[in-house]
Order: sequence, then structure tokens, then C-alpha cells
Amino acid sequence: MTITVAIDCMGGDHGPQVTVPAALDFVRDHDDVRVILVGLAETIRLFLGESADQRVSVRHSTEVVAMGESPALALRSKKDSSMRVAVNLVKEGVADACVSAGNTGALMAVSRFVLKMLPGIDRPAICAALPTLTGHTHVLDLGANVDCDPEHLLQFGIMGAALVSAIEHRDRPTVAILNIGEEAIKGNDVVKRAAELLWNSDLNFIGNVEGDGLYKGEAEVIVCDGFVGNVALKASEGLAQLLATFLRQEFKRNLFTRLVALVAMPVLKRFKSRVDHRQYNGASLLGLRGIVVKSHGSADAVAFGCALRRAAEEARSGVLARISERVAQRQPIQETA
Amino acid sequence: MTITVAIDCMGGDHGPQVTVPAALDFVRDHDDVRVILVGLAETIRLFLGESADQRVSVRHSTEVVAMGESPALALRSKKDSSMRVAVNLVKEGVADACVSAGNTGALMAVSRFVLKMLPGIDRPAICAALPTLTGHTHVLDLGANVDCDPEHLLQFGIMGAALVSAIEHRDRPTVAILNIGEEAIKGNDVVKRAAELLWNSDLNFIGNVEGDGLYKGEAEVIVCDGFVGNVALKASEGLAQLLATFLRQEFKRNLFTRLVALVAMPVLKRFKSRVDHRQYNGASLLGLRGIVVKSHGSADAVAFGCALRRAAEEARSGVLARISERVAQRQPIQETA
Repeated sequence: MTITVAIDCMGGDHGPQVTVPAALDFVRDHDDVRVILVGLAETIRLFLGESADQRVSVRHSTEVVAMGESPALALRSKKDSSMRVAVNLVKEGVADACVSAGNTGALMAVSRFVLKMLPGIDRPAICAALPTLTGHTHVLDLGANVDCDPEHLLQFGIMGAALVSAIEHRDRPTVAILNIGEEAIKGNDVVKRAAELLWNSDLNFIGNVEGDGLYKGEAEVIVCDGFVGNVALKASEGLAQLLATFLRQEFKRNLFTRLVALVAMPVLKRFKSRVDHRQYNGASLLGLRGIVVKSHGSADAVAFGCALRRAAEEARSGVLARISERVAQRQPIQETA
Repeated sequence: MTITVAIDCMGGDHGPQVTVPAALDFVRDHDDVRVILVGLAETIRLFLGESADQRVSVRHSTEVVAMGESPALALRSKKDSSMRVAVNLVKEGVADACVSAGNTGALMAVSRFVLKMLPGIDRPAICAALPTLTGHTHVLDLGANVDCDPEHLLQFGIMGAALVSAIEHRDRPTVAILNIGEEAIKGNDVVKRAAELLWNSDLNFIGNVEGDGLYKGEAEVIVCDGFVGNVALKASEGLAQLLATFLRQEFKRNLFTRLVALVAMPVLKRFKSRVDHRQYNGASLLGLRGIVVKSHGSADAVAFGCALRRAAEEARSGVLARISERVAQRQPIQETA
């Protein structure tokens, strides 16, 4: 079986100079994939160079959604944007998945409009993997929904568990809900009610985790509303950058520390490759009738390649069917609130 | 002027074996402070040893609030707990501030009950400093309030600005609100309305920051609801621990890397001391008619000492008067929502 991935080549901070080389590497490394490069054909061909792989094709589109553009405007007025055309290819069944590094809000709006939601799912959620001591945890929602009700959080749990069981071949992945720990103030009303729904579901729900639990591998899937998830993710990015800057500064302090840095280079490089956030690039927009993966806007070719692999893996492992199945199996709601 | 700090010696994971030595160091290092050690007198005297400093006194109390204890129960039934007595000493004017490493929920409940709120402040907030590239940022609320309305967030801004102007001698500290960045989904309703109130206030409000802005020094005060703040803080703690573990593992991988670690030790030590979270220990419970500082439960003597210094500094700089002043100066609300 061949997996076809439609790529919005114009999205992201760097556009085709990152997306096209990443696509070529991706095709070279995987025998079972094809890519459709969507965007301004002339520009794409510039970066394609001599490449004549039959598994690479170009689909011309005339418009580009800008990074800061209003999603509503992008949806209404840019019907021939590279983003829209890439999502359309999924809708038409020409592609099995699409990947974009463009404007998240616009990608969400376009995907939702074009693909529609899966039956039984009310809202899409952004899901990505975070590193832990022993592997990684899938967290959702990371920013699609600023206000969620308990039912939405339950649906996120169902989708996250389906994703993990599909791509990681886990039978009953553990699911937790992000909460705060102090006794008196344990959670707000929505989180408490969502936890009840999750306990009463057939998910392998294990209860609350606190913020630090995101990085402890306490659960394979952690659900939260998009506001909290987005802040936690970005706070982590900010702290990681701060620590990296401090470490660099200390090794650059003087001649002695620079020499130490030379000696320590192999160790520091291994550390760096281990915590390289690029390997976690690629967030799934779950809940849609099609596979859409969002790359970080600032992704380089290595990072964008990770997003492409994630999209292909989701298509290969039948994530959509798995989610639909799980939704269909849902027990009747037994909310006790 | 002498500052008297009442110390709940029984609170925290380690109790008097941490709190008493930290108190002695604190008194030794600061000529203008006195401490009242509150708790089981016999146990405290065990750790006091030969110390006969006239600025150290012991106040016996018979009960202890356990770390996992229900705040409501602690409030109702433990009227002679070390925590309660320490807060009482502030209420009675015997102490200028108190510090506890005990159960946050209980400390909040007891402080609120005993001390009451400052006029014009509806709810207490937990405020602590986070490191940035250029210094640090004060963030509140970090977990006292799981649901806030816009007026509460405005009050957090007023209190945070008063705190920073008092202890850091800043005239008009910058204030921002924590938000998420995507265009379509920029903030929930509460955050949007709070931002309007903040723009219309006489604070030096600069608008939104995203999660990574917590560590970028974009504002001197950042406000958020306690659920989001708590998750962001703990997620950061979790990530920092994960990175430290990875770094340690890489330096312990084999004989060569262990030798490298020896060579790199001075640099790594400087890095470690620079990012040492203990120096940020001590969160202020703002909004009360008295100064209460919460130490991390797992604090060692160094960390607990930082919390003691914070409490003394707040008393010295007249934070309470500053908050009351700012509240009194408030312009009439011009909410446009």
C-alpha cells in the first residue's frame, strides 16, 4: 500500500526552501510514500532542482495564507491557497494525509470546513507528543479550544487513546487528565466533571496528573483544554530556551570554559540530540474526517520531516478508523454530576 | 526597625530539621530581624541546640497540620497548629510576617480566615518569581483560584505591580496577561475582558504574553488564573527535572564521559547555581491583611532561607501599604464588555 501525503509547501516561516528538501528526503527514506507538493509551481520547481522521482508530483496553486492572516479571511477568500488545496486533496481521496507549517488557526478553520468532523466528535483537538523519562506522552488539546466542557475532554481522551493505540500499537493506553494538586482547590468544575465521565468510560483512565506529570510518563495520553495545554507547551518551550541559553553562556564565559566546551562537545551533542525538540515536531489535528498534521512554523527540514513521517504513520495505521471505532463503542453516558 | 518573622517550624516535608537551621542562618545573616519559632517546643529545642541568640524565640504549639490534610478540617479542628499560631502572631501584630512550608490549601484557608482580605481585594493570590534571561518575572495566581473573573485578574495585576514596586523599587512595573497566541482562538472570554479592564486601569499594562513569555522577561508582572498558572509552573518544574536527568545521564554514560564531567565540573556547577530553583523559593499570598509567604514543601535550608528573606523584604518595604494605596487609587471601572 502506498501512502500519499499532500504538502502545503508555501506554509511556515521558510516555505519551499524547507518543505521541498524535506519532502525529497522523506520520499528517499520511505519506499511506500508519494508526495504531492502544493503551491506556486514555479517556486517549488526552483527548489526541486533535477529531482525526477516519480513519487513526487507538483500541484499548482495560486494563493498563500500568510502566517498572521485571520483564519476567517483565509477560509472565505483564499480558495486556491496551497493550504486549502492540500486539505482538498485529502477530502477528494487523492491524498491520505496532508501536512502544513502554516497558520494554525487557518489550518484548523480550513480543515474543519473542508473535511468536517468525524461522527460523535464535536470539536477538533491539537495533539502532540512530549518527551518523558521513558518515552513520550501524547497531550491534547494544545490550543484548538479555549473553552471546553466535560464531554469535549472525554472525546479528547477517546481520540488520544485511539491515536496511541493505532500508531504505537498499544492495546489500552493509559489516559489522565491535567489538573492542579492542592487539596482545597483541586480542579475546577469542568475538570472534575470530565474526570467523572472518564472514569465511567471504557478508557484506561488513571485520574489526575499535575503539570510536572506531563514530563514524567505517568500516562500515555493526557487531556486538557486548549488554553491550559497551549500555555503549558509554550512555557516549556520558553524554559528550555532559557536553560539552553544559560548553558551556552556558561561554556562561553572565558577561554578556560571554551576549552572545556571543546572537551565536553561529544557529551553535549548527545544531550542536545536527545532533547532536540525537532523530533517532536508534528501535531495532529484530531477529530476530522481526514488526517491533517501541523508542523511548527519555524521548522527546519529535519523537523518538517518528522511531521511528514507522523502524517504517513497515521495514514498507515488507520487512525481515523480507530477513532470512529472507539466512538461507536462508547458506552451510554453515565454522568453523575 | 526590626522585622519579626513567625516561622511555622513543623510544616513541609522535613519540618524543624530544615526550618530551624534556616532560621538561625537567617538571623545570623540579617541584623534587623527576629524570628519566632512556632511548633512543638521540645522538638524545636532539639534542633536549636546551644543557640542562645536573643533574636530567636520559641512559641510552643501542640498541633501540626499534615501535608495531605483537608484545609477545611485543618481550619476547623486544629486551632493550636503551628501554622495557625504563626498566622495568629501576624494578626496580633507580634510578627510582621510569617512563613510556612506546610500544606498550601490549609495555609491559604487559615490565612484568609485569620487575617481577612485587604479592602478592595476579593481573593488572595499566590505570587512567585520565575527566572528570565535578564532577571525575573513575578507571576500570579499560581494556584489559589481555579476560576477567576476579569475583575479578579485586574486585582492580581494591581497586587503584583504593588509588590514589585515595593520590593524592587520600580516605579511603574510592566504588567501583562498570560494568553494563547493563535489568531482565531486568541484567549477565552475572561482573558479578553480582563485585558480590557487592565488597559483601562492606570497600570503599566502591555497586553498579552504567551506561555514562553513567562521566561522571556517581557513583563515584570504576569497575571493568569490559578489553574493555568499552577499548570505552567509545574510543567516547567517537570521539564527542568527531565532535562537535568538527561544531562546527568549523558555525563555518566561511560568512563570517558565521566572524565569529561570532572573537567566540566566548574562550568556545570556555575550553570547549576544559576538555574538553582531554590533561589526562587517563597511564594507570597497576596491580598491578605498580613504578610504570609509559602515555601515549597520539599525546601531544604537554603531554599527555606530564601522564603524567609522574601518575607522580611516584604515587611521592610511595606508591601501591604503599597497594595492598599494602589487599590484606593483605582479608577472607576470602565468595562466595555
